[in-house]
Amino acid sequence: MALVMGALAAGESVTRAAVAAEVGLTRATVSTLVDELLAAGLVEEQGAQRPGTVGRPGTVLALTESGPAGIGAEIGVDHLAACAVDLRGRVRVRAERPAANRGRGADAVLAELAALTGDVIAQAAAAGLTPVRTTVAVPGLIGPDHGTVLRAPNLGWEDVPLAAAFGGQDLDTAVENEANLGALAELWLGGHDGRLTDFVHVSAEIGIGAALVVEGRLFRGARGFAGELGHVPVRPEGPRCSCGATGCLETYAGEEALLRAAGVTTGRGAALKAAAVAGDPSALRALEEAGAALGIALSGAVNLLDPQAVVVGGPLADLAPWLLPGVRRELAVRVTDRRWRAQDVLISRLGHDGVLRGAAYSSVRTVLDDPAAWIRNLTDQAADPASGTGS
Amino acid sequence: MALVMGALAAGESVTRAAVAAEVGLTRATVSTLVDELLAAGLVEEQGAQRPGTVGRPGTVLALTESGPAGIGAEIGVDHLAACAVDLRGRVRVRAERPAANRGRGADAVLAELAALTGDVIAQAAAAGLTPVRTTVAVPGLIGPDHGTVLRAPNLGWEDVPLAAAFGGQDLDTAVENEANLGALAELWLGGHDGRLTDFVHVSAEIGIGAALVVEGRLFRGARGFAGELGHVPVRPEGPRCSCGATGCLETYAGEEALLRAAGVTTGRGAALKAAAVAGDPSALRALEEAGAALGIALSGAVNLLDPQAVVVGGPLADLAPWLLPGVRRELAVRVTDRRWRAQDVLISRLGHDGVLRGAAYSSVRTVLDDPAAWIRNLTDQAADPASGTGS
Repeated sequence: MALVMGALAAGESVTRAAVAAEVGLTRATVSTLVDELLAAGLVEEQGAQRPGTVGRPGTVLALTESGPAGIGAEIGVDHLAACAVDLRGRVRVRAERPAANRGRGADAVLAELAALTGDVIAQAAAAGLTPVRTTVAVPGLIGPDHGTVLRAPNLGWEDVPLAAAFGGQDLDTAVENEANLGALAELWLGGHDGRLTDFVHVSAEIGIGAALVVEGRLFRGARGFAGELGHVPVRPEGPRCSCGATGCLETYAGEEALLRAAGVTTGRGAALKAAAVAGDPSALRALEEAGAALGIALSGAVNLLDPQAVVVGGPLADLAPWLLPGVRRELAVRVTDRRWRAQDVLISRLGHDGVLRGAAYSSVRTVLDDPAAWIRNLTDQAADPASGTGS
Repeated sequence: MALVMGALAAGESVTRAAVAAEVGLTRATVSTLVDELLAAGLVEEQGAQRPGTVGRPGTVLALTESGPAGIGAEIGVDHLAACAVDLRGRVRVRAERPAANRGRGADAVLAELAALTGDVIAQAAAAGLTPVRTTVAVPGLIGPDHGTVLRAPNLGWEDVPLAAAFGGQDLDTAVENEANLGALAELWLGGHDGRLTDFVHVSAEIGIGAALVVEGRLFRGARGFAGELGHVPVRPEGPRCSCGATGCLETYAGEEALLRAAGVTTGRGAALKAAAVAGDPSALRALEEAGAALGIALSGAVNLLDPQAVVVGGPLADLAPWLLPGVRRELAVRVTDRRWRAQDVLISRLGHDGVLRGAAYSSVRTVLDDPAAWIRNLTDQAADPASGTGS
């Protein structure tokens, strides 16, 4: 059933025959599985295939828009957001509000986020969706249980049992690092039709967020700390970094360093972008130099990992027109053993919403990955309505 | 059967009961499989288990020393070598000779290597072993078919169809990059009891060879070019590198740079080591600086990949006493998000033989990984002796 759901998630205008060809099962087996998914309301029929195809036209199948919804929530340094996506990955409900979260205390932040998320869950339910799980994106280091924030320096958090504290929603809660979710969003929703499976994803809010996707999976490293591009040395004798070392990428291309170099004192990325659009020489020079530093660090990553591409996403994508020349120049010179082309650096199409959509879609993927568990749960609820989860 | 062979390869004094516990099969199934492996001569009984264990003592099983042999061959810049290892990974035959291979031409090099390897194969057969395959280690970039050397700059080779040219041995031949084989040797034969599965392996002959092992497998990257530590930028404004970029690790810690900085004009690593042992200040300073550069590049790799350890192997291990202080100092300062300890940098116990043993063991692993194919081949040969492979 997961294979069938996966084939429907990946394709458009898919028939039973096409699913069978895709997943390597017999037409009869696929029909049986599809019947179960239709009965459970996870899949729907959309009428006959377009004429012009060979043979008897099949019925086009699609994932439902009215079944499970994945909930995503995001804790930024100066905003909170939540959204619900359906099985197709489309955003159905979205809420966002500014919030000064730095040093505010986890309790207050989580209470406000829980209220915002509760509204989104209620609206999703009112729209006929069944929320299945909440994934919270945090700019910090997450424990291996995916429930605890070990450390989020930009929020001032240490050892926050987020999933437990976030309760009261009747939904399971998972916590994940925002850079990882940005990369997964690119993998799942970036519009690459499953062809982009090995890449380095770079984004930035305060620090430099990066994550590695290898063979279509997040690459976490032996202890879950992989992807720390921000502390790759660019110039070992360079400026002191907040991590204690010197010359890390963050000291050249982190937001704080970038704003200081550009002489932008109020506002953040948006103010820097405005200065660049206006042709301010300090802003242009700062972005050029940050782009070169990013390219130097990425050259090391590409030489080590040999990914298909580097993807620039998140807030950093807004600054891409000014950063990318430096990034591409350094990669062209420094990547050995393969011809690195300018087009191997991609700009994400997901914009600022990547992390939030990645969080919500990772929630709904629990149903895509195990539809049988969802169906069992439906059956159990029908037998004993009080025991169910969901709203 | 592969699971049983794997359990025997990993453990000592293993009984049928221990194999069953290890691989999660019933005792009866394991006994049946062991009987087939005993009949095929891949496994042997070594008498009763030591007293002191609980319950009825079992019979200790071991991989045979007299069955298949893996053949390894190595093309260095100034030497050729070949060896045979048995299923236990022990070197049974070994031959080596000096050879000035740089710019000598692939035909001459391969003819000499084929003669050397032929002697090793003949001696292995005379010792009652059955050679199964030859793996040739080359300091260069290997094509995805593992038959062609795409580029080996230190030999002056381009597009050499090595596996085809190396024929006439009656054995299949595979070609692999020497740095990859060094890392695999560490994984398989490094004495880590299967606990070291995620590491960066650094060795060096002329360039800096490195390879990544992730979850117990070689990490090759999207196009097979992963592990290029030698061209990770250390100081982007540094010396011009042979690759065309500037400030790559190789310009600080590659053999040529190191010998020049140390003022060693004749001899290679051994001469440098002698100078260091004698306390020559230039040699000590050169090694200290190369160690620091290696540490800077490795910090980037560790921050990106979060391996369990970094292993220094190959000829580089000889220089470890002088290189490691700088390596460890830079890693201690620059690795973020986890406490990096001095003991997370290991020195390989395999010494200079790592690459060659890795090549030979990767040959014999074809039997460990698929004993059924070996047994089928034996049966076919018995039925039609003329059709068999092996000598």
